[in-house]
Amino acid sequence: MKNKKIQNAFYAQSGGVTAVINATACGIIEAARSRPDKIGTVLAGKNGIIGALQEELIDTHFESNASIQALRYTPGGAFGSCRYKLKSLEKDPRLYKRLIEVFKAHEIGYFFYNGGGDSQDTAHKIGEASKKFGFPLLSIGIPKTIDNDLAMTDNCPGFGSVAKYVAVSTREAGLDVLSMAETSTKVFILEVMGRNTGWIAASSGLAKDKPEDPPHLILFPEIPFQRPLFLKKVAETIQRIGYCVIVASEGVKHESGNLLSASSEKDAFGHTQLGGVAPLLSQWIQSELNLKVHWAVSDYLQRSARHIASGTDVEQAYALGRVAVDFALAGKSDIMPIIRRESSSPYRWSIGEAPLSCVANVEKTVPRTYITLDGFNITPSCREYLSPLIQGEDFPPFQNGLPVYARLQNKEVSKKLPPFEF
Amino acid sequence: MKNKKIQNAFYAQSGGVTAVINATACGIIEAARSRPDKIGTVLAGKNGIIGALQEELIDTHFESNASIQALRYTPGGAFGSCRYKLKSLEKDPRLYKRLIEVFKAHEIGYFFYNGGGDSQDTAHKIGEASKKFGFPLLSIGIPKTIDNDLAMTDNCPGFGSVAKYVAVSTREAGLDVLSMAETSTKVFILEVMGRNTGWIAASSGLAKDKPEDPPHLILFPEIPFQRPLFLKKVAETIQRIGYCVIVASEGVKHESGNLLSASSEKDAFGHTQLGGVAPLLSQWIQSELNLKVHWAVSDYLQRSARHIASGTDVEQAYALGRVAVDFALAGKSDIMPIIRRESSSPYRWSIGEAPLSCVANVEKTVPRTYITLDGFNITPSCREYLSPLIQGEDFPPFQNGLPVYARLQNKEVSKKLPPFEF
Repeated sequence: MKNKKIQNAFYAQSGGVTAVINATACGIIEAARSRPDKIGTVLAGKNGIIGALQEELIDTHFESNASIQALRYTPGGAFGSCRYKLKSLEKDPRLYKRLIEVFKAHEIGYFFYNGGGDSQDTAHKIGEASKKFGFPLLSIGIPKTIDNDLAMTDNCPGFGSVAKYVAVSTREAGLDVLSMAETSTKVFILEVMGRNTGWIAASSGLAKDKPEDPPHLILFPEIPFQRPLFLKKVAETIQRIGYCVIVASEGVKHESGNLLSASSEKDAFGHTQLGGVAPLLSQWIQSELNLKVHWAVSDYLQRSARHIASGTDVEQAYALGRVAVDFALAGKSDIMPIIRRESSSPYRWSIGEAPLSCVANVEKTVPRTYITLDGFNITPSCREYLSPLIQGEDFPPFQNGLPVYARLQNKEVSKKLPPFEF
Repeated sequence: MKNKKIQNAFYAQSGGVTAVINATACGIIEAARSRPDKIGTVLAGKNGIIGALQEELIDTHFESNASIQALRYTPGGAFGSCRYKLKSLEKDPRLYKRLIEVFKAHEIGYFFYNGGGDSQDTAHKIGEASKKFGFPLLSIGIPKTIDNDLAMTDNCPGFGSVAKYVAVSTREAGLDVLSMAETSTKVFILEVMGRNTGWIAASSGLAKDKPEDPPHLILFPEIPFQRPLFLKKVAETIQRIGYCVIVASEGVKHESGNLLSASSEKDAFGHTQLGGVAPLLSQWIQSELNLKVHWAVSDYLQRSARHIASGTDVEQAYALGRVAVDFALAGKSDIMPIIRRESSSPYRWSIGEAPLSCVANVEKTVPRTYITLDGFNITPSCREYLSPLIQGEDFPPFQNGLPVYARLQNKEVSKKLPPFEF
């Protein structure tokens, strides 16, 4: 870079990806391209912070404007993500020295890290370390998580689209079960993500317009599971309306705090990986109530379903990317842009900021007031909170019946440093 | 009915419902409404043929034109479906006598039955019985099945939309896994429907534009499953491109002919219901290859996902409903309208007819030439066959972020006969 004022930006994606994390990437890269007086190129970490440690940096300037635009409607993480928690500076200063060497070698003055609570922690640690080492780096975290569990921000980009997918799927599958209930399937269980928080499960409640509509029972990680009560509720629902649609969070726990799925998977397979609540509940309902059950586990489908993304979510994910660049150019650091809700109806939002230290490693669960007294559905205030987040459709372009998603070249810059082991 | 020439029509939905079976209902009712000189009202069987046996007949004339129009984009079976196979006339003549009594009491001269192979058998038996008893009834079967396994017709309404859902989901989830593969999930398994035929699993192959694209392995019921070969293929794929997306039909069988899922579910839960191939494969891959696996079972979501229905499928489902009425008014009986493919590229189709006796109880599997030699993917000829069926989008209207689906009144006509036990 000839002009000393011009510096490159580092951007990386971290943790579980979403339908809209690339919309944030699009916002950052487009904003950076609009300020060539300040920002050279955006170097994207290949597989998150690991790309920085290994000096695997993707030079986004090789990508056409059209390709970057296409990121706005492409699910997954276009540069690769990682599940990697950076040790603290005290525990492993080598990591931080390496990162700063890489940033220095590639003239990086801006650090953008796009992820959940752990990732905000990473952004915070790197900001702190660069201060300590006297390296001029502005560190901005950008929220992303389908779990909607980040503190300070009203909601998290990525969540609205999962919420919409789950609400739409609940409504659609509900019509299917209702049709079949007379002579065949009477119970349908949809297992959704959410290890510690029930935001995703809660969003299924948006499918309910009338009291008899699905979902009839929602299982939250926040509400201890009681098998007899649950089975009684299922039986009552069948008695009353002839069928029962259940949406269960993968993180549902026994009163002991143990995961239902952990115990089930141990029984059946000797593993403890999550993702087996639905078959377990199905087994109990079949054996104890003698009802025909169908179950679905949507797993990655729910968080990659860009074809049914929330327009609001896409807009916010993109806007947070753009504003992160504005913040950095204004000299701000160690913060995360957040969504502030100005009003729910009509929905109005603005962007604020929060110190990374207040966001890192804090988890926001579903408040008890958002869950009905019996623990099996959402309250009107929860609905008021959730509803704006799924508004609007933002269909990707289709060709030959399928959505056309971005294919980047992902060319890496030449390495300037020796390899690094970690 | 004052004019003797005017008779009512009976219409019912049978078997597993689809995203577009109501589009056929819409076609039938709209066509019937356009011929008030010939057809009085369409009486819909509540829960399929059971509605006729129990004299539970929904009078569709109470539904507004707007509601009937909305059926075109509403998933599930608006009048209820059933899983009920009618015994033969020889075995239980009482059933047929009852049906004819009901038809006579409600001045029904047209019988439209909308379903798969079993349902075409029902339509055939009822047509035969009415001839035998000298009751003037024109019986028309209308194809519907997500399994695409009906004989005589090029494809079945309901299938194209599942195919599109599965292809879109495979593409989207594939991008997710690709992002995560470096440090986390390397294998993703999507389990889809298809007990005896692999048409649905095959359709995932449409997501593949380049050789390295997902799906990397498709498991068909038509190809005997060999565990060592399968695991070798997974390992090779990981070695070559770093991740592996597998689409498995629920009906995958061992060389012995036993279902994989049957054995797994018996081990774990003591049941034999289908829907457990994905967790079983996941267990094997984790324990033998030591790779992190995620799996999804889309179950009812795949066949109710009207939001991502195929435009071609909707158009064909609707057209077959309309033409069924034309056939009946032309005095035809004991036939099923079929889709004839005139050309694949550009796709051109027309409607023909087939005798019900040639359709009933015949099952069309995926030809061996549609499956690659190694048994794990689809050939170009399969792609040429499948591709037109997922073309076009036909999004339902959305309100508050959710699709708005028809809510019928479903008012039943007064009963004229004594109750019937069966």
